[in-house]
Amino acid sequence: MKDYQVVGIGNALVDVLCHESEAFLAEHGIGKGVMQLVDRNRAAGLYAGMGPSVEVSGGSAANTIAGLAALGARTAFVGKVKDDQLGAIFAHDLRAQGAAYEVPMAPASAEAETGRCLVLVTPDGERSMNTYLGVSEHLRPEDIDEGLMSRAEWLYLEGYRFDGAGSHAAFARAIAAARGAGGKVALTLSDPFCIRRHRDAFARMIRQDVDLLFCNRAEICEMFGADFEAALAAASAQVETVACTDSENGAHVLQGGQRWHVAAVPTRIVDATGAGDLFAAGFLWGLVNGRAPEACARMGNLAASEIISHLGARPEADLRALFSAHGLG
Amino acid sequence: MKDYQVVGIGNALVDVLCHESEAFLAEHGIGKGVMQLVDRNRAAGLYAGMGPSVEVSGGSAANTIAGLAALGARTAFVGKVKDDQLGAIFAHDLRAQGAAYEVPMAPASAEAETGRCLVLVTPDGERSMNTYLGVSEHLRPEDIDEGLMSRAEWLYLEGYRFDGAGSHAAFARAIAAARGAGGKVALTLSDPFCIRRHRDAFARMIRQDVDLLFCNRAEICEMFGADFEAALAAASAQVETVACTDSENGAHVLQGGQRWHVAAVPTRIVDATGAGDLFAAGFLWGLVNGRAPEACARMGNLAASEIISHLGARPEADLRALFSAHGLG
Repeated sequence: MKDYQVVGIGNALVDVLCHESEAFLAEHGIGKGVMQLVDRNRAAGLYAGMGPSVEVSGGSAANTIAGLAALGARTAFVGKVKDDQLGAIFAHDLRAQGAAYEVPMAPASAEAETGRCLVLVTPDGERSMNTYLGVSEHLRPEDIDEGLMSRAEWLYLEGYRFDGAGSHAAFARAIAAARGAGGKVALTLSDPFCIRRHRDAFARMIRQDVDLLFCNRAEICEMFGADFEAALAAASAQVETVACTDSENGAHVLQGGQRWHVAAVPTRIVDATGAGDLFAAGFLWGLVNGRAPEACARMGNLAASEIISHLGARPEADLRALFSAHGLG
Repeated sequence: MKDYQVVGIGNALVDVLCHESEAFLAEHGIGKGVMQLVDRNRAAGLYAGMGPSVEVSGGSAANTIAGLAALGARTAFVGKVKDDQLGAIFAHDLRAQGAAYEVPMAPASAEAETGRCLVLVTPDGERSMNTYLGVSEHLRPEDIDEGLMSRAEWLYLEGYRFDGAGSHAAFARAIAAARGAGGKVALTLSDPFCIRRHRDAFARMIRQDVDLLFCNRAEICEMFGADFEAALAAASAQVETVACTDSENGAHVLQGGQRWHVAAVPTRIVDATGAGDLFAAGFLWGLVNGRAPEACARMGNLAASEIISHLGARPEADLRALFSAHGLG
């Protein structure tokens, strides 16, 4: 048995969440429902215009790891913060959830601060994200502890974390260490625009190293072609397991020539932030506990339904109890 | 017409809110339902033991001013933060709500950081607060802009802000400037333990300068004697208007020999943090709009009912719409 069931690598961010109108998005030129990278000045300008906000630790893979830790999984996370107040908040929340946190920490003298994501939640519950990566962008190969990677059953990689000069090399080092010790690799495509920025690197990694691919409809079509069915087929020809969410249409899982569809859990959407992240958490929890793909996807959908029922992307309810209540104990 | 209807002076804090069990309070020696001051080490130790948390701007008088700003009042707030990330969050949230914020800011080199309040919310919805004042403690007379004070119809003083070496002198300067320009003075007693720390200063201020006293049952009994009715009578003999909340029993208002009782608004309590602060906001909103004492108290109860229905002490719903829905438009 390995020390960790899932080790995640991703951006270490604190979410700054605020309810805003559609008009606010239009006025500030914010793309709806996607993640856009912003620099420090743009972040400061947007923040000055935003209404009163709430801060909750975030980061896509970090949300997944937090969800897994809440479920009781043995997990660890690697992501870069600075030695500042937001960095302390991020580290606290992950550890308090029960995840080990490996902190390649930038010194207090570093120019960039801990990253943050300005999340505008419109009345329909959709979230539009504006990410100032800060020091999270500067994760480099030397920040990757190969010993930690070798102790992971699953390495979980966040597509968003591909931005940044040293990121591809850092991922390569992590993958080599994990696979070299018999670990498997999961990747989440994160976002259509993120795929456009790193298409070739994603394609190579998927072909060579990925055992489990998380994505949604927009992402798989961006990566594998506009026809959804053809894209699913193309992805599953390259990857052992494909888990593709499709909003209110639920999720599709493809593995070894088989395919399952699992309906979404009806939920009033307060804030869609973290839906995909918690789907991955629920799915991986099932996987590391030896559950069949369909049960994994049902757990993913249930965890996602919890996270979209409240503001923020860290679980508030007891996910294990939620699974049990749906016959997945 | 004065520039500001209400100018508040209080602690500038960011709340760090977390759901915890009764056992956690016992294990860590935390007094339930009250505010205890903690030093930096104790704050760090408690935080390390707390579960994943959410950050929301807080501070008692700041919550009241935020509520008033949300209602559309012309307001300003004075409280000390440091030039750090939590200070930026506090300032943003107050300004984004529409309040002017006068920041006597400690330099980035100051040893103490922006203050924070670790709020443990137990399953019954009660909040137990552990406040590290940080630089908020160091509000001094020279931080008080007499010009600003003279432009206030009402000066709203937070009892909690009496802690700290220069605080009494700072309040005296603010009161003199406000009253000298024809302004009136409201004081909230804040907390029974706070009264014990500053009994004589409170007594003198109430006798000499306070036109409107906010308190709850425990506070008025701590200040004026254990018998609730006698305490109400003693307070109203010294102060023009007394507005005393009594949890689920609603609120009592005494003014000019008259007395009103207003029932509480039935609400499921998620988090009691800020109930008194928002009662004061609703009450003051009525007052500066010329409403009768009974209507003021009803507005106070409605605003309090909104704040206890969710985590955090800043309003999320439209308070004006809430008042209108209850015939107080």
